[in-house]
Amino acid sequence: MKTDVQIAQEAKMLPIIEIANKLGIKEEEITAYGKDKAKIDLKVLTDREDKEDGKLILVTAINPTPAGEGKTTVNIGLSMALNRLGYNAVTAVREPSLGPSFGIKGGAAGGGYAQVVPMEDINMHFTGDMHAITTSHNLISALLDNHIQQGNALKIDTRRIIWKRVLDMNDRALRNIVIGLGGKSNGVPREDGFDITVASEIMAILCLSKDLMDLKERVGNILVAYSTENKPIFVKDLNAQGAVALVMKDAIKPNLVQTLENTPAFVHGGPFANIAHGCNSMIATQMALKTADYVITEAGFGADLGAEKFFDIKSRFGNLKPNATVIVATVRALKYNGGVDKKELQAENLEALKKGFVNLKRHIENVHKFGVPAVVAINRFPTDTEAELKYVQEETEKLGSVAVLTEVFAKGGEGGEDLAKAVIKTIEEKESNYKPLYDVNLSIKEKIETIAREIYRAGSVVYTKSVEKKIKDIEAIGLDKMPICMAKTQYSFSDDPKLLGAPEGFELTISDIKVSNGAGFIVALTGDIMTMPGLPKVPAANNIDIKEDGEIVGLF
Amino acid sequence: MKTDVQIAQEAKMLPIIEIANKLGIKEEEITAYGKDKAKIDLKVLTDREDKEDGKLILVTAINPTPAGEGKTTVNIGLSMALNRLGYNAVTAVREPSLGPSFGIKGGAAGGGYAQVVPMEDINMHFTGDMHAITTSHNLISALLDNHIQQGNALKIDTRRIIWKRVLDMNDRALRNIVIGLGGKSNGVPREDGFDITVASEIMAILCLSKDLMDLKERVGNILVAYSTENKPIFVKDLNAQGAVALVMKDAIKPNLVQTLENTPAFVHGGPFANIAHGCNSMIATQMALKTADYVITEAGFGADLGAEKFFDIKSRFGNLKPNATVIVATVRALKYNGGVDKKELQAENLEALKKGFVNLKRHIENVHKFGVPAVVAINRFPTDTEAELKYVQEETEKLGSVAVLTEVFAKGGEGGEDLAKAVIKTIEEKESNYKPLYDVNLSIKEKIETIAREIYRAGSVVYTKSVEKKIKDIEAIGLDKMPICMAKTQYSFSDDPKLLGAPEGFELTISDIKVSNGAGFIVALTGDIMTMPGLPKVPAANNIDIKEDGEIVGLF
Repeated sequence: MKTDVQIAQEAKMLPIIEIANKLGIKEEEITAYGKDKAKIDLKVLTDREDKEDGKLILVTAINPTPAGEGKTTVNIGLSMALNRLGYNAVTAVREPSLGPSFGIKGGAAGGGYAQVVPMEDINMHFTGDMHAITTSHNLISALLDNHIQQGNALKIDTRRIIWKRVLDMNDRALRNIVIGLGGKSNGVPREDGFDITVASEIMAILCLSKDLMDLKERVGNILVAYSTENKPIFVKDLNAQGAVALVMKDAIKPNLVQTLENTPAFVHGGPFANIAHGCNSMIATQMALKTADYVITEAGFGADLGAEKFFDIKSRFGNLKPNATVIVATVRALKYNGGVDKKELQAENLEALKKGFVNLKRHIENVHKFGVPAVVAINRFPTDTEAELKYVQEETEKLGSVAVLTEVFAKGGEGGEDLAKAVIKTIEEKESNYKPLYDVNLSIKEKIETIAREIYRAGSVVYTKSVEKKIKDIEAIGLDKMPICMAKTQYSFSDDPKLLGAPEGFELTISDIKVSNGAGFIVALTGDIMTMPGLPKVPAANNIDIKEDGEIVGLF
Repeated sequence: MKTDVQIAQEAKMLPIIEIANKLGIKEEEITAYGKDKAKIDLKVLTDREDKEDGKLILVTAINPTPAGEGKTTVNIGLSMALNRLGYNAVTAVREPSLGPSFGIKGGAAGGGYAQVVPMEDINMHFTGDMHAITTSHNLISALLDNHIQQGNALKIDTRRIIWKRVLDMNDRALRNIVIGLGGKSNGVPREDGFDITVASEIMAILCLSKDLMDLKERVGNILVAYSTENKPIFVKDLNAQGAVALVMKDAIKPNLVQTLENTPAFVHGGPFANIAHGCNSMIATQMALKTADYVITEAGFGADLGAEKFFDIKSRFGNLKPNATVIVATVRALKYNGGVDKKELQAENLEALKKGFVNLKRHIENVHKFGVPAVVAINRFPTDTEAELKYVQEETEKLGSVAVLTEVFAKGGEGGEDLAKAVIKTIEEKESNYKPLYDVNLSIKEKIETIAREIYRAGSVVYTKSVEKKIKDIEAIGLDKMPICMAKTQYSFSDDPKLLGAPEGFELTISDIKVSNGAGFIVALTGDIMTMPGLPKVPAANNIDIKEDGEIVGLF
């Protein structure tokens, strides 16, 4: 089979204006970036305020395993399949970060015959959104340190600055640094560090804002530090939100590209799925809902993190009404959850499949708790046996759902037609009664414990001493009435990545807590979350090249 | 009078494809970034290899003063004036850096009725060139620190790393930092620092490369460190040049915009004018020469730095044949050079003018030393008296040149018609016999001393002890046969910014020396050069805002 980049480069792309026209978007409403990428004016959204929304389908997955699930591939494939069947469907996915491309080979724009294109641009600078976030974030940092340098009227405690700096680069040497050295004219010395750009709260804000004025207000509300008098310091105290809004004026506009089968695709925003909510931008999703009849979107990691945040954070804030959820699973990944070693996944093993199926079962149950119907997509591999596939389908039916085989990686939209039909049938026959899991006015602990009990099935939640103190601090400044954004390992329902399947009764430890007041959520961390990746011994960058004839090698 | 941004926003821009068509560039040869910006394929250059070049006019200036000279304004105004007179002319200027916009109010795309537009985009992200350079530079940094972390096979001496990191931000707290703290998995601790992006050698390389393969090779040749065995370490030793070339694949394409009078304008590349050569990209200049009959370009700071480097570095490398030089002066700035306080420049003062005229006189003589005819443009201010203007014009004529009044700031192209006519007449009547000032095969000291004697009129050159040692090191590794790039104060011919007029016989001290081996020059520094600006007490960012209706305030 051809590589992803070979398939992508053979794509017959339509001019982006034709793609926009499919959605009823006119030439004067887009800003083209070359022939195959465009940003869409927000006017497209405001002009259609009274128009009825299309149907919203969330693609999520079982807990990720090294075996691979193919969530984005199914998402893109489903949108192509719906179009093949005559439905007006679009996909709305996250945009990739540039930095990780230099570490490990591989893009983030689907795969095989289910990709968005031009994938080499989407994985590089694209339309500059990541760079705008990097600039915005570091502008706030520079203004903060300059405020301290110029007299520190706000009495910022240099030991309690929460706001770090960011780069879109895997660079471990920047995780922990000391800045402001070199004497009086070169700043005030203090500890600092860099995160990767997608970990910036500006990214989370971009993805939850309803327009540029909302973004500006949210940026103003970012909590950046505490004063020596223990007062919270916000970005608005540094008066940086107007400049940040200017830097973000184009980044806030959704990017439009196309799939390999010329289906319109919104690719916009990509926050972390642990310390943030892990979904593409609200504006892109809402614009998709106003311009298409069916919108396929997704959320990062498995359903315990991704779907929970999609329902409890994004859908709550955006007043979205998800109509159906597709849970992506593979026989291989279920067997892995059942204890089979990665190297032996190709052999039939019904015993392990049965043991690992509990993972999928619980995700189906969890999605139903939000009142949303679920369809299972079995991303088929050549090594899957008939008996294995039959088992998953029969067991899924017992749970009131249906499990459908997909082969979109190898066959494109054609390989997703059965799934498309099942999704349409589910939407037509099953009413969605979406509601979030908890009330934001509950206490921080009550909210965390609701998620832990209902979704993770923990037996108890424990808080470290410093977390207990931080919760009191957050309550004292009145920032506690927001949804919880859980930062947990994606590999398990628990906080232990080795507990596969469907563990229950375990103790969940909250090790840190922080307020993303601009984004509008409280991040509860279970264990260390890496927010600045490192490079491996032999980085992908060593093999990346562009030849004289323009051929790109080593990137995908 | 209206502000720059008001004038710019009233501009009647033509679609960028129409601007390209004026140069014989077809739609399939451009990548449009919206309706008013485009990148031009390098094919435009290679397809016209056999075509005769247009005439090349360098705009330079007397030593800059707080009174302001308006070099870019004259450059843009001259291109508009030539078009008004029926000539096919373009301007090729540097592109601005984003970071400084947040420090001090004011853009870098001309002024008044002599601007390139859309100026608010050009001064912000534009087409992403600055971001591509930031990414490229920091990728090399990350690969270097990762090499050390992963075993340091090259034996890089962490105390002798020359390559720093960059951000396009005025951020003094990042000038001197310590990185790699936090234990074994977080890098190896060492001293480091950030420069502003335009100070990156990648920027100088972008502006001297003839194509992407040349850029790749030059990046490979960047000297980044020395080993513990005193061996030079280059980027190619880290195998990063292929990945950098990929990151720069779009940035290397010249940007096309237009002036307020719809004259085509190439705005591409903007290296520092002290530690680098301070001219827009070679590719843009060459493309302009192949697509227009008259190309107006410029170089940073006064002619002692800008023109010297344009002739000795850029023209030498690019085999350019400059036909004429325009030296921009103002009566006010000449009086300032004659010792008048900034506050009293509006009053007539022939005595001071006479005293300060020596500055212009020497710049004219210097330009003639390169064999290129000079025309003086007197950028007229309302307070200039007839007697003062007459004096400058008569004295200039005695030197074999002509001094012409321009009013392009207030009147646009119309205000530059007399200058345009004088330039055309000069090109038609005076042959240019351009040649560089020195042979690159001279020793480092001989080259420095030639510039010091012929251009600055220093009496002697002294070298600090560490410079003496560094020169020997550079000679030992055979990197000494390159042009010299002088980093000197722009305010004086000497290395003392207070020595105005035309000082001579002074001692010039070389305080540091470094090899920009990728760019292809040796930087000789006279005193400290700031490569990371700071923010003022009240940064411009505090007043920058974008309103709900899109109105931008506080930026210009």
